[in-house]
Amino acid sequence: MQSKFIIGIDLGATNVKIGLLDSKGKILKKVNLTTKSFPGRLKLLAEITRTVHNILQEKKLHAKDIIGAGIGLPGPVDFKNGIVDYLPNIPGWRKFPIRKWFSLRTGIKTFVDNDVNLVALAESRMGAARNAKNAVCITLGTGVGGGVIIDGNIYRGSSFSAGEVGHMPIAEKGPKCNCGGRGCLERFVGNKYLLQKARGSFGSSISLERLAELAKKKNKKAIAIWQEAGRHIGVALAGVVNLLNPDRIVIGGGVANAGKVLFDEIENTVKSLAMPTQRRTVKIVKAKLTDNAGIFGAMFLVKENTD
Amino acid sequence: MQSKFIIGIDLGATNVKIGLLDSKGKILKKVNLTTKSFPGRLKLLAEITRTVHNILQEKKLHAKDIIGAGIGLPGPVDFKNGIVDYLPNIPGWRKFPIRKWFSLRTGIKTFVDNDVNLVALAESRMGAARNAKNAVCITLGTGVGGGVIIDGNIYRGSSFSAGEVGHMPIAEKGPKCNCGGRGCLERFVGNKYLLQKARGSFGSSISLERLAELAKKKNKKAIAIWQEAGRHIGVALAGVVNLLNPDRIVIGGGVANAGKVLFDEIENTVKSLAMPTQRRTVKIVKAKLTDNAGIFGAMFLVKENTD
Repeated sequence: MQSKFIIGIDLGATNVKIGLLDSKGKILKKVNLTTKSFPGRLKLLAEITRTVHNILQEKKLHAKDIIGAGIGLPGPVDFKNGIVDYLPNIPGWRKFPIRKWFSLRTGIKTFVDNDVNLVALAESRMGAARNAKNAVCITLGTGVGGGVIIDGNIYRGSSFSAGEVGHMPIAEKGPKCNCGGRGCLERFVGNKYLLQKARGSFGSSISLERLAELAKKKNKKAIAIWQEAGRHIGVALAGVVNLLNPDRIVIGGGVANAGKVLFDEIENTVKSLAMPTQRRTVKIVKAKLTDNAGIFGAMFLVKENTD
Repeated sequence: MQSKFIIGIDLGATNVKIGLLDSKGKILKKVNLTTKSFPGRLKLLAEITRTVHNILQEKKLHAKDIIGAGIGLPGPVDFKNGIVDYLPNIPGWRKFPIRKWFSLRTGIKTFVDNDVNLVALAESRMGAARNAKNAVCITLGTGVGGGVIIDGNIYRGSSFSAGEVGHMPIAEKGPKCNCGGRGCLERFVGNKYLLQKARGSFGSSISLERLAELAKKKNKKAIAIWQEAGRHIGVALAGVVNLLNPDRIVIGGGVANAGKVLFDEIENTVKSLAMPTQRRTVKIVKAKLTDNAGIFGAMFLVKENTD
């Protein structure tokens, strides 16, 4: 029998999503793990491996039935050699050869990449960046991630670290950022900082979901917070648009659900700041894939590298 | 006889440089025109065409001896269809099909591109970006231009307008820029703005050349102006480095000659602001090609599109 299934794994700081897909991209089985329940790299990897074995067993499949496994990880990943450089939010992964480790233990051909690169790939193949030649995807959440598609393919940069839209400075004298920089976009619109702002107006029990609801109910203070966030994001994206002249910008991640007030402000800011040719060319759209973007991206990574 | 010569033309707002090169890249003849002496698009083009004919006549060559002509222009150029979109600093060029015009009048196969793209191409092939896989070149002058090399080739973007490093915002609430944006890098370090700063300290007769000399003689006010410029440039480049993870940044243009004080500050700023993997990967170097970069770039454009 010809191999025709793919394993897609989205390894995040909060959850690990493990999916079995057929070659048409249908998810046949999906298991979520809580990352923190398996402290330490090896415990987590052992649990992921065990889960993959269980899925195969349940579906009466063997390693030879699997075209390959794709794994997305939240940090710089050497796609070519299959090595995690480091994971900023999960300790203990420095220079870890995950591809070799995983393929040896499972007998499955393995491909690894940065998680947001895989989200961008999925959006490019079946989502909001479909048919775009050059696209930039940003994910708004605890961190602000980014993935760049050039000429229809993931652009990884010279050491597999491209795409960090969240760490483009938008204020020369802005506050220090976790990354070591200063005035980075993430330092203004990462969940933590948005929540700080919101607490200043609405007290410590406010959540970002609630802040979005309040804005929808026309609460002026809530609207102002989202608009300020939208302006910050729009400023960074205007720089991206002038530099890369993409035809599509895709905005995803939890914060993207804040709705029209945020989105309109992002779009207005980009359209008012970017240069004429660039701003006429670019479409700014909301991500289409949500929960399973990482798994789908991992699937395309496998498919496009085994054809 | 096989064609073996190339015409390289660097059409700028101040000068037009026209060169005849052999297939090894040796400049056999070079003529400079003063752009403003030929007001209007057609007068300028007629003079360029006349100059090309004169050069051929002098060298006893005919159109059939010429592999092709490359023309660099200061604005967005549709490389594929050979059409100038517009030239911000030379009126009258909107949507002009220069490739067709020039090839019909000269009988020479013609290729056109943005001037800074061609500088980047030349630096990539024979200058400071040689052997770099991904590189960004910026030119510091009246305007702050940029060219992006991805995987060894010019990256033009989705509508031939990529590379505008000078129009990346570095200050959300910064001053209005000519381009329609706000707080763009060029708005802080374009010649005009640097000169304004310098005049504040040294009176109206100061030039940027003199400001550079003063800094070399340890004049503190002059050093401070260059350092401030270096920080602005470094902030924008830190964003470029985090986004594109290039292995080389090339800095050229007149202002780049301000020397070590400017260059050190650019480098220190990028190295202190960019993310660890990205900053370890990138080398920041001074452009190697000076006056003839545009002509050489035009030559490579012809060579690489006729092989």
